[in-house]
Amino acid sequence: MEARGFTAADMQAPVLTDADRQRIIRRGSGTATAGAASNFTGSVQVTAPFSGADGARIRGATVRFEAGARSAWHIHERGQTLVVTEGCGWTQREGSPIERICAGDVVMLAPGEKHWHGATASSSMTHVALSEGTGVEWLEHVSDAEYANGPATP
Amino acid sequence: MEARGFTAADMQAPVLTDADRQRIIRRGSGTATAGAASNFTGSVQVTAPFSGADGARIRGATVRFEAGARSAWHIHERGQTLVVTEGCGWTQREGSPIERICAGDVVMLAPGEKHWHGATASSSMTHVALSEGTGVEWLEHVSDAEYANGPATP
Repeated sequence: MEARGFTAADMQAPVLTDADRQRIIRRGSGTATAGAASNFTGSVQVTAPFSGADGARIRGATVRFEAGARSAWHIHERGQTLVVTEGCGWTQREGSPIERICAGDVVMLAPGEKHWHGATASSSMTHVALSEGTGVEWLEHVSDAEYANGPATP
Repeated sequence: MEARGFTAADMQAPVLTDADRQRIIRRGSGTATAGAASNFTGSVQVTAPFSGADGARIRGATVRFEAGARSAWHIHERGQTLVVTEGCGWTQREGSPIERICAGDVVMLAPGEKHWHGATASSSMTHVALSEGTGVEWLEHVSDAEYANGPATP
């Protein structure tokens, strides 16, 4: 599986100076990248990418989904953790209903689980998405028919 | 290094049912645990613990610090990532100044880095704290004299 939807620079572990062994990645910082049309539907902005060093696997970025926007279905080789930081959105594991998530909630996907996440039909959602390593397999888009199955409380 | 300040149950990887391969950990859910006086100063509440499965290393919890509260100095064997979800707080790596962090900011500590984090002197802060595995070494408390060196903008 290879990483797509991020630039090579985003995914590369930085060379840490001694003073940079604590990195503070400010909300919305870095070059804002539009989520690739191949991997997302609607307006999606990726900012503030980060990645671990010295054997730490963790890496991630902040992703903002405008109302109606969502990722395509995808699978993370070592799972994924989402920390919702603003608004409310939807998340779905294949075979289960779409579920509502709001600021302060955490979502953990087990390794190999096919899933998607994004805004609700009427509200934006921002999360910090974290994974261990770069292994992600991007699959088909979430169709309008699939997305229309979101919960009644948007 | 051993884990302290969390119960054994918090740190144990859950046995995932098929339907639980996407876990949604709601803000503030689970038994609220007061941060152990040996590892924290002031009013600290730990909620919503989570841990990975199937080879995922990631685990963590939501930690709320009331104004003036902070962790003791500590070291994570594989580093630590903080995602601030509410308010503003302070973080410090040994040998560097105290820095202000606010909702939406991410802090990455490299493996082995001695550090502390908590509220500012006048505002509460909540973060989701994530680490890879359980290795954490708790050290001395952050003294009032050390804490008084926080930035002028609280």
